[in-house]
Amino acid sequence: MAQAAAQESRAVHAVQATIGDSEFDRDTAVTLREEGVYDAELSSGWTIIHAVNGGYLLAMLGRALGQALPHSDPFSVSAHYLTASVPGPAVIRTQVVRTGRTLSTGQASLFQFAEDGTEVERIRVLATYGDLDGLSEEVRTTAEPPAMPPRDQCLGASDGTAPIPGSSAITERLDIKLDPATVGWAIGAPSGKGEMRGWFGLADGRDADPLSLLLTVDALPPTSFELGLKGWTPTIELTTHIRCRPAPGPLRVSITTRNLAGGFLEEDADVWDSAGRLVAQSRQLARAPRG
Amino acid sequence: MAQAAAQESRAVHAVQATIGDSEFDRDTAVTLREEGVYDAELSSGWTIIHAVNGGYLLAMLGRALGQALPHSDPFSVSAHYLTASVPGPAVIRTQVVRTGRTLSTGQASLFQFAEDGTEVERIRVLATYGDLDGLSEEVRTTAEPPAMPPRDQCLGASDGTAPIPGSSAITERLDIKLDPATVGWAIGAPSGKGEMRGWFGLADGRDADPLSLLLTVDALPPTSFELGLKGWTPTIELTTHIRCRPAPGPLRVSITTRNLAGGFLEEDADVWDSAGRLVAQSRQLARAPRG
Repeated sequence: MAQAAAQESRAVHAVQATIGDSEFDRDTAVTLREEGVYDAELSSGWTIIHAVNGGYLLAMLGRALGQALPHSDPFSVSAHYLTASVPGPAVIRTQVVRTGRTLSTGQASLFQFAEDGTEVERIRVLATYGDLDGLSEEVRTTAEPPAMPPRDQCLGASDGTAPIPGSSAITERLDIKLDPATVGWAIGAPSGKGEMRGWFGLADGRDADPLSLLLTVDALPPTSFELGLKGWTPTIELTTHIRCRPAPGPLRVSITTRNLAGGFLEEDADVWDSAGRLVAQSRQLARAPRG
Repeated sequence: MAQAAAQESRAVHAVQATIGDSEFDRDTAVTLREEGVYDAELSSGWTIIHAVNGGYLLAMLGRALGQALPHSDPFSVSAHYLTASVPGPAVIRTQVVRTGRTLSTGQASLFQFAEDGTEVERIRVLATYGDLDGLSEEVRTTAEPPAMPPRDQCLGASDGTAPIPGSSAITERLDIKLDPATVGWAIGAPSGKGEMRGWFGLADGRDADPLSLLLTVDALPPTSFELGLKGWTPTIELTTHIRCRPAPGPLRVSITTRNLAGGFLEEDADVWDSAGRLVAQSRQLARAPRG
């Protein structure tokens, strides 16, 4: 069944999408309305059940800030989630907070509209941008890539044994293969460990870039599933550091929770590229499901 | 020498300061000028060489937001550092972003003044507040407190073998005892590991609270010292999760760096209270010293 799905995937996406010309790029596009203000359309293609994925929203905000600031690459992006987004029109309002020689800081808010047309703020971001290509070549990373099986031994949305929760449009746009050691939740046997690991790609074959990494850090099932908790794990705050422009090819993602307490939990994500670089690190605070 | 210092410390602070009546509380005080705007004075007592400590600034901003928002406890505080603060007058401008039943989100900026009186923004914060006392009692923390010697076997600023860098006023206000395994840098023999551990208290004996935890996460020497790098490690962004109101008594702090690359590094801090609770988790992105 995994093989059939892979064949189908190859058939549908006979031509690999490229950075700038892909589903992800089209669906995170923003249109300049006036200085600092961008119109956008939240696609129903990136929803989990009815909610728009938080990483997808972050990528869209990140794109607007990259246009508004003199530096184009997100270095550190702190997002506080305010109200649940829905597919449909949105407006992003940005502010340049500080511009420097190597780093600039900006702020952005994404709004949607109440029935009477009032703007309702969904998410607010504070971010520092720079130029990833201008960084020194020095790498003294001591973290190790996640230990997990090769991609063809991991389990995707089409594998009967480990379905990623159904009726979610986003699963059609992502090519996620989870480490079998972290999919016990899908068959009612969660590991009890706060760990989720997998291979990550975009379904149309588009390679990763700093903007898509903002999606990647919030795209795997929540660690709470492996902790035996069912249901929604809404993000309160998510901060992502992009540390390197990712090499082409599949990404490895490891998510860890060490402190589930008082009804909240943190999720730390590490993202590794095919060249073995730790390209992104994120941490979020989320509300634990009651289950 | 350690014993002499401890005796001196006890003599100077014969009466233990309390939350609300301590150096920390006086020096982080803010005065309401008009709705959402607070006047403050950055004390020269919390400087490292000439710069005002980033954690001290964060605590002051945290205090202003706790007054401006309907919830008083910081849950997640994301700070982006813009320009270096100096001792002297400052103004904090806050904005209520969203108020909810259990959580509220706010924004705050700290400004100082150019010679012509223009406001210069030093630091901007986006934060979500709640009520720590209203959280569930459930604790499923899998993280372990840092393994380090008892406090009396750790080394403080007055111990000749491991001086915390001199001429820094902040060392007189803190009671930090570092794990001997992480003070090699002080005698020219850094461990090469991105680790810094120690016991933390305020010198006047004031116990910890959520506001002082915002100071604690950025108060130890940087891990870059143990990585053999000398000099300033300026914070770009620092996000702190306060997860529990700390019990009275000394705190244990562990700081880890796993990704020094491209001239930047992350620092993850865990703060444990005397009751064995993981009370705060933070991560910062900082610029690595060139040394």
